[in-house]
Amino acid sequence: MSRTNPALALSAKARRTGEQPISFLMAAVQANPNLINFAAGLVDPLTLPVDTVRRIAQTIFTSDARGRAALQYDTTLGLASLRRAALKHLEKLEQKSAADFGVSERDILISTGSQQALYLIGDVLIDPGDIVIAANPCYFVYTGTLASLGATVIPVPMTSDGIDVSAIEKLLGRLERENQIGRVKLIYTTSYFQNPTGLTLSAQARPRLLELARRFSRHHRIMILEDAAYRELRYDGPDLPSIKSQERENQHTILTHTFSKPFAPGLKTGYTAMPADLLEAVLHQKGNHDFGSASLTQHIAAEALDSGLYDQHVRLLCQSYRLKRDAMLEALKRFIPASSGASWTYPSGGLYIWLTLANDLDTSRSSRLFQACVDKGVLYVPGEYSFQPVDGPAADDRGFIPKNHVRLSFGQVAPEQIEPGIERLAQAIAASVSQRPGEASPTRDVLPMNAHP
Amino acid sequence: MSRTNPALALSAKARRTGEQPISFLMAAVQANPNLINFAAGLVDPLTLPVDTVRRIAQTIFTSDARGRAALQYDTTLGLASLRRAALKHLEKLEQKSAADFGVSERDILISTGSQQALYLIGDVLIDPGDIVIAANPCYFVYTGTLASLGATVIPVPMTSDGIDVSAIEKLLGRLERENQIGRVKLIYTTSYFQNPTGLTLSAQARPRLLELARRFSRHHRIMILEDAAYRELRYDGPDLPSIKSQERENQHTILTHTFSKPFAPGLKTGYTAMPADLLEAVLHQKGNHDFGSASLTQHIAAEALDSGLYDQHVRLLCQSYRLKRDAMLEALKRFIPASSGASWTYPSGGLYIWLTLANDLDTSRSSRLFQACVDKGVLYVPGEYSFQPVDGPAADDRGFIPKNHVRLSFGQVAPEQIEPGIERLAQAIAASVSQRPGEASPTRDVLPMNAHP
Repeated sequence: MSRTNPALALSAKARRTGEQPISFLMAAVQANPNLINFAAGLVDPLTLPVDTVRRIAQTIFTSDARGRAALQYDTTLGLASLRRAALKHLEKLEQKSAADFGVSERDILISTGSQQALYLIGDVLIDPGDIVIAANPCYFVYTGTLASLGATVIPVPMTSDGIDVSAIEKLLGRLERENQIGRVKLIYTTSYFQNPTGLTLSAQARPRLLELARRFSRHHRIMILEDAAYRELRYDGPDLPSIKSQERENQHTILTHTFSKPFAPGLKTGYTAMPADLLEAVLHQKGNHDFGSASLTQHIAAEALDSGLYDQHVRLLCQSYRLKRDAMLEALKRFIPASSGASWTYPSGGLYIWLTLANDLDTSRSSRLFQACVDKGVLYVPGEYSFQPVDGPAADDRGFIPKNHVRLSFGQVAPEQIEPGIERLAQAIAASVSQRPGEASPTRDVLPMNAHP
Repeated sequence: MSRTNPALALSAKARRTGEQPISFLMAAVQANPNLINFAAGLVDPLTLPVDTVRRIAQTIFTSDARGRAALQYDTTLGLASLRRAALKHLEKLEQKSAADFGVSERDILISTGSQQALYLIGDVLIDPGDIVIAANPCYFVYTGTLASLGATVIPVPMTSDGIDVSAIEKLLGRLERENQIGRVKLIYTTSYFQNPTGLTLSAQARPRLLELARRFSRHHRIMILEDAAYRELRYDGPDLPSIKSQERENQHTILTHTFSKPFAPGLKTGYTAMPADLLEAVLHQKGNHDFGSASLTQHIAAEALDSGLYDQHVRLLCQSYRLKRDAMLEALKRFIPASSGASWTYPSGGLYIWLTLANDLDTSRSSRLFQACVDKGVLYVPGEYSFQPVDGPAADDRGFIPKNHVRLSFGQVAPEQIEPGIERLAQAIAASVSQRPGEASPTRDVLPMNAHP
């Protein structure tokens, strides 16, 4: 029987939503499982708390009452004991009482990873054409999400002090003069050990950013979305207080945390503190999405926090990642000569090192360098994916997307893979340098960052 | 320091999205935990598989490799072994090879409960003003979700054979003549033991519905969204083949299943078979929502299916619910006299009985009957919430919302609560009948249904 094959009629949003750009990396891994994978933002499988979660599951399911609660529906907002434990944990991180930054258990949302919270916040704030200010480079999964929601993402440069707060001030001033300030909904910043650069928003910049959000909220409230996914993976230096902890009123900042990076991605559990009116809108939306994340994984996360096993695990994890970070920095220093014009960041935490090559070297997916790396058995994320193409009212000279950056992650790799992986990368870079075209391509250094000392 | 409190500027979608209408029921339960709760659509806590999941968790976490996989990220599509096991399970339910209905593992999406799949499907198909055809009454969480997406939900009557397929044919014909057929995206049907009526789409109606979707898909593909959440909670009669299993091409039907009702809501895991082009759009969207549901709960669900523990549990569950259904039907017969004009459905599965009172009795939230029940310590869902207000091109005489229905669930209550609960309800009804106003309110019987024999 022959039958026509009528097309699906997709929504405008579906038509705006493409595949995440880096799925080709997965294909490269599948083609060669022996690749040394500096591309994956995954956590180290060997550090996953298998035995800890086994014991926690035993504790939960040995009690009929707890076991039943873990297998029943919970609320859309999230398990009360987890919200309590998360708030207590937050107080410990901030070293102050939650009352001093206006947050109670009722202001904490549990979500399916912090990504779901990021999504929901975008969903309730953004209409097509609205503006989000974000760093350039930035976490590309979220800028993709924002684009799918129809947002115009206006990038401001990333500096060694984090997102460039002076550039945000200038931008907001211009948008106000141009009567576009009504479109500005969010300022998005990964305030600790940013993906992809590994850089942290400085202590001085934090209150300044908050002051800007307040000052420019004359017509409606401009929110700061502070993504603290990597906060607890800290290897050097002090833990800075969050932006959120610096406002008393729980009004302008949203602070997202996750259990994925510091504990286990498989729990897919995040927690977010946000203003009550925003939370109400987010809850209505989450009611439609799933009316609550899996309660079993919430019970496990709550028990991990309450028992102290979470803190123990974070300490072990930091030791393990610190060694891997040091090994990668050491290998970069050893194999990439100063004469090459390359520099890289020195992250005090997180999973990423951002490598900047000479201006005329191309790291993109279609480049000889990328192919040479795949051939040699090492994988990275081309830096271009972390940059925003600029459109809308900010289409000035920042529309340029540099091609000479590399995101390196020491997250998933085994310690002993780091040196050989960087050696392979360095060989591929050296070969690319020797094959340089005579004429330099039109590039520019857009990212003044802290280079390796 | 005094400071202005500028308002949030919410998105159009957030402004369309209200609280789920029945949160007042939660408040009633919190005020009196001793209420006999026929309102909650929760599963029976005493039947939750605590010991089974404890053993499954042990199995998973005793192996380092499996434990690590369960704690690591998985893919956006979902755990491969769960998709395989779900497909095998589906073949058993349909009693035919999946190849015969065009579905492979790659066409199965794992989601955070089936609600997330329902949401995502709406999100990728519906622009504001698009039409979804649904039964009246219908599962109110999803009609609320559709309204939030901006859909115009056009209701067609529910009959004892399920959603009224002849009415759908008439409606589609009219929409085609009026050049509105381009707006029709979905026909939504809970094809087994519907929430709220307990009624099932008849064997004869299933291929007819599929034929209609095909016939009216001249310009774009009209999809049937078949929600099979209650399918495996079957107490009498044969398991009918799904609508999905009756098309060879995997083109017009989406079939959603969940582990929440037949196993454990706390896993919050559902699986959905759908056409490849639709799945691609859904995956892009889910990539933005959460890039994959919790992998730990997926590993548990997969092990439950593979080990046979799932099937064992479903058998136990059906025995337990069958007894509770019978007790509720028995109590209704005993306490509600034939002379009252009341009738009720006789569900062969699921969690609900739909009680229809005399036309002039009001069951709504603000009614004397509802308050009398709360005072006596029994709770139900007023039937009005399951009906659609009609707007848009179908604003004809179906705009009427009847107030004389009650949704009763025997899901969460203990067996020994059923008789006293129905007795209290019957007393409240008898008191309302005696307090009837002299003048009957303008009502009409809109739902010819199978009454208790």
